[in-house]
Amino acid sequence: MITLTTDFGTRDGYVAAMKGVILGICPEAHIVDVSHDISPQNVAQGAFVLDNAVQYFPSDAVHVAVVDPGVGTSRQPIALSTSAGFFIGPDNGIFTHVLRRLGHMTGAEVPEGCSAVVLDKTEYWRHPVSNTFHGRDIFAPVAAHLAKGVPMEKLGSPIDSLVSLKLSQPFVRGNHVEGRILHVDSFGNLISDIPASLIDRDVVSVRIADRTNSGLNETYGVGEGLMALVGSHGYLEIAWRNGSATQRLDADVGETVVVELKREA
Amino acid sequence: MITLTTDFGTRDGYVAAMKGVILGICPEAHIVDVSHDISPQNVAQGAFVLDNAVQYFPSDAVHVAVVDPGVGTSRQPIALSTSAGFFIGPDNGIFTHVLRRLGHMTGAEVPEGCSAVVLDKTEYWRHPVSNTFHGRDIFAPVAAHLAKGVPMEKLGSPIDSLVSLKLSQPFVRGNHVEGRILHVDSFGNLISDIPASLIDRDVVSVRIADRTNSGLNETYGVGEGLMALVGSHGYLEIAWRNGSATQRLDADVGETVVVELKREA
Amino acid sequence: MITLTTDFGTRDGYVAAMKGVILGICPEAHIVDVSHDISPQNVAQGAFVLDNAVQYFPSDAVHVAVVDPGVGTSRQPIALSTSAGFFIGPDNGIFTHVLRRLGHMTGAEVPEGCSAVVLDKTEYWRHPVSNTFHGRDIFAPVAAHLAKGVPMEKLGSPIDSLVSLKLSQPFVRGNHVEGRILHVDSFGNLISDIPASLIDRDVVSVRIADRTNSGLNETYGVGEGLMALVGSHGYLEIAWRNGSATQRLDADVGETVVVELKREA
Repeated sequence: MITLTTDFGTRDGYVAAMKGVILGICPEAHIVDVSHDISPQNVAQGAFVLDNAVQYFPSDAVHVAVVDPGVGTSRQPIALSTSAGFFIGPDNGIFTHVLRRLGHMTGAEVPEGCSAVVLDKTEYWRHPVSNTFHGRDIFAPVAAHLAKGVPMEKLGSPIDSLVSLKLSQPFVRGNHVEGRILHVDSFGNLISDIPASLIDRDVVSVRIADRTNSGLNETYGVGEGLMALVGSHGYLEIAWRNGSATQRLDADVGETVVVELKREA
Repeated sequence: MITLTTDFGTRDGYVAAMKGVILGICPEAHIVDVSHDISPQNVAQGAFVLDNAVQYFPSDAVHVAVVDPGVGTSRQPIALSTSAGFFIGPDNGIFTHVLRRLGHMTGAEVPEGCSAVVLDKTEYWRHPVSNTFHGRDIFAPVAAHLAKGVPMEKLGSPIDSLVSLKLSQPFVRGNHVEGRILHVDSFGNLISDIPASLIDRDVVSVRIADRTNSGLNETYGVGEGLMALVGSHGYLEIAWRNGSATQRLDADVGETVVVELKREA
Repeated sequence: MITLTTDFGTRDGYVAAMKGVILGICPEAHIVDVSHDISPQNVAQGAFVLDNAVQYFPSDAVHVAVVDPGVGTSRQPIALSTSAGFFIGPDNGIFTHVLRRLGHMTGAEVPEGCSAVVLDKTEYWRHPVSNTFHGRDIFAPVAAHLAKGVPMEKLGSPIDSLVSLKLSQPFVRGNHVEGRILHVDSFGNLISDIPASLIDRDVVSVRIADRTNSGLNETYGVGEGLMALVGSHGYLEIAWRNGSATQRLDADVGETVVVELKREA
């Protein structure tokens, strides 16, 4: 099983080119699209969406992620082996959320329980290699060989550090938790970086963009206007009943959200 | 075979999460996307698109439809067994068109030849269950178990009534048939609720949005400007030659269309 | 293996209807989407995207392409057998780029090494045939039968001429090469008709839309603003660093691009 996460869009056939390469090497591969609508070059968005999806896949799946503004430059093509599956893509932070969820700090070291290689065994690539489309010429063929049973160690040389994104962390002070919006989904829901575990005591209010929601809502279908709830990602989420919170609040990624609790967190 | 129809969009990985859950339970499932671009919370649009697609699938397919503004509220998660396949989703009317095409009235009763259950056997769900994403936590795993051979009766308890949408019905008076636009497709074609059978005698004219088309056209590639024809859905359809009828006519779902026939319908 | 390229969009279930028909005939078919986001009725765009993707697929794949403004008129439904696979669709020029890449001129004759039939054996169609949706009723079932092993010769009667698009050709004069933009991808990159082979000597400058780029860039991630490079298609491509060239330059398909070389081409 191979999943694909890219910013290639679905119009131009770039994704299909990757699939053709994969299926030429490993005809029995089961390919699943995670997303090809990541905003162009938005590594942080790709990292969030990738993690949101891959945690539901069997742990032997191969996940290819190509949001790669540095394609063809000195950034490294890598593969990771983790307890949540294999990951293949550029070493630009695209795997940051996955690694954080697995309990790893987002420092420079390859975390314990994982191993990583830089993809430098060119015999597993497609040739000639375009400078601008490593998805087709490096990541797709390497993923196909891995899915076909080639051990990761044969695909590249071990490395012990990784590039990672600086992720915001929620901030606790007394009975207040302050976080930030990490992601806006296509419904316009605002997903924050505040995990349910930090607010699983009585919530007095949730404040964002100069508006206040009293307490927490249970689900989208109960309430009116502004809503705050624990969403399906397991994080505090801001929604608008039958509407788009991002539009109604004029709020986007990075916006501050403050939760007041009855007692100290 | 499992099909998916949702309003989740393709950017955020929600659909991929469902697929991961399905493939974890039933790795051999063949998953086909019907649409993930239903307008958010637009149950009527989802119901139309679902029916448009599923009638071409083998009758043992499992069709999952999740346009679900009431997720997590008292609306019931259900499964249906019909001569056209299995259907899984919220009991909010999303299966109205399917049931009507099967010759069932759109009343509250589960029609003859069908059976229905409320999905209340939690051992077939994914846990913990999010209040906001039953697609991932209830509908996907139940569909996977059904595709894997678990009988529908084991997935829930029998019910004998269903929620259904109020659908408009074309209105015949003398040699006039009056209907309404049910759906606007992505070409901008306007699909009405007037079936071919009601107008399969000489059409004098078709009138919509203060414009009149003389007779019926054969296909999109013959004629100029406004066109009226029997479309691929088997219903009267309004099109614009090499353009978008919805834009040219400023007409949308609900717009009235009147057909004049040479003799009484 | 069957690929699909259409302008049907992904919202309305038209593509799923085709897939249902295919899977009903050939349940083991592996269906891959190339694109369903071709601009409505834009045969030239579809022809470019199709060729961009199919060259990476195994040579026994069946490629279905339906950008078909003339559906239901006198234009012929055809199938082609080539060294790059089978192709099925309307005879309206949609296969022009594929045939040109295979070394064939784009004249009216079926090129050597290929064979073509007009799809006139109605026993391989779905009935009744809609005048407006040959994708579902002719091309999908024929592709499924072909993938299942029915020889192409049984699907139709031989023809020896094809409709082809007039493609622009780059123009060489002394040490200047003048070409045109063939395609704008979803990143906003402008792909020209000038192949790498014509400029694989020192490039002095690339001029487009009253702007000049000095020399050639290696890849997207090096440089600032306007960039000119050999893209993954193997053609001269105009890009903008971390942005959209089509927007920044206000340039689209058909725009002229001029390359100055150090010596004559």
